[in-house]
Amino acid sequence: MSYFSPSIEKLIESFEKLPSIGHKTAVRLAFHMLDLNEQETKEFIDSIINAKTNLKFCSQCYNISDSDPCPICNSPKRDSSIICVVEDVRDILAMERTHEFKGVYHVLHGSISPMNGIGPEDIKIKELLTRLQENDIKEIIIATNPRVEGEATAIYLSKIIKPLGIKVTRIAHGIPVGGDLEYTDEVTLTRALEGRREL
Amino acid sequence: MSYFSPSIEKLIESFEKLPSIGHKTAVRLAFHMLDLNEQETKEFIDSIINAKTNLKFCSQCYNISDSDPCPICNSPKRDSSIICVVEDVRDILAMERTHEFKGVYHVLHGSISPMNGIGPEDIKIKELLTRLQENDIKEIIIATNPRVEGEATAIYLSKIIKPLGIKVTRIAHGIPVGGDLEYTDEVTLTRALEGRREL
Repeated sequence: MSYFSPSIEKLIESFEKLPSIGHKTAVRLAFHMLDLNEQETKEFIDSIINAKTNLKFCSQCYNISDSDPCPICNSPKRDSSIICVVEDVRDILAMERTHEFKGVYHVLHGSISPMNGIGPEDIKIKELLTRLQENDIKEIIIATNPRVEGEATAIYLSKIIKPLGIKVTRIAHGIPVGGDLEYTDEVTLTRALEGRREL
Repeated sequence: MSYFSPSIEKLIESFEKLPSIGHKTAVRLAFHMLDLNEQETKEFIDSIINAKTNLKFCSQCYNISDSDPCPICNSPKRDSSIICVVEDVRDILAMERTHEFKGVYHVLHGSISPMNGIGPEDIKIKELLTRLQENDIKEIIIATNPRVEGEATAIYLSKIIKPLGIKVTRIAHGIPVGGDLEYTDEVTLTRALEGRREL
């Protein structure tokens, strides 16, 4: 039995459909919405509509952006001869937070996953190859996730890009800074050993 | 420095303004919104607009409802001679979940709080008194929250309603079911002692 009016029920359901929102949070959010004044409600809805309307993919790197090319591809401060290949738009954010990478990006929008029927032609690999042919690229840094799919994608990419005479690198895997040797899984530890560097 | 495009930033900010949503969840929700198709986006926005447009206060109990009177006030199965007084619309939900209460409600929309400048005239007490005069009421159950403001409101209500010859009761305070005597605060334990019943 439902204790709320249909309109509230529907609103709660809407919020419940969002990721990481449980029933209690959905109820709280729904009532918060009801408490908002007209202006605040309009701002909330407009932010959704604007994002859905204005955002497009950058035709170079496939980042999501209000402009095409995106601010990163368009920036004269970025070295367009180094491309960091990531699986998802959000991975760009993670990379940018390091303040270390000054090159540009290429978003694959997925990773090769035969289990899920996703092959090389389903992600933006063709587009990456076109970029490599049309521009003078010195290095490709593959920053796909250190999971089976990400590794498979990394290996696939290196196999097709290396013959073009372009340097292909993979970001290092190892123990996270602040991590604990005792609690590090054996695969990560093996990778950390393999990737050891002289001091 | 912002790493996202303005439209995404704005969307993330919108979600961050919601209660119990931190930055990481806001980012996740914003990107989830971008992933929704047109129909799903429309449904989400419509659920907000519909709720804001359709919902009104029940003119009897001040519950939020699509209809006036609300389904509870309108139900012939409910005993309209027993009124449970609560602070907030959400408290009705908590009471309804017990499946025990068969009377009707009155939502005060707040509690007396001199500290915050909220007096008896700022919450729906006048409306409650009008209800008591116009209807044949047998009992008022005061279910305000067991906090200073809720207690003050309960005492105030009992003082003005008792002279009308109507029975006024307060829900019991005590140790929650499943609670632990050892970890129960002394105020609750005192209340539990005071409220003891013969077995």
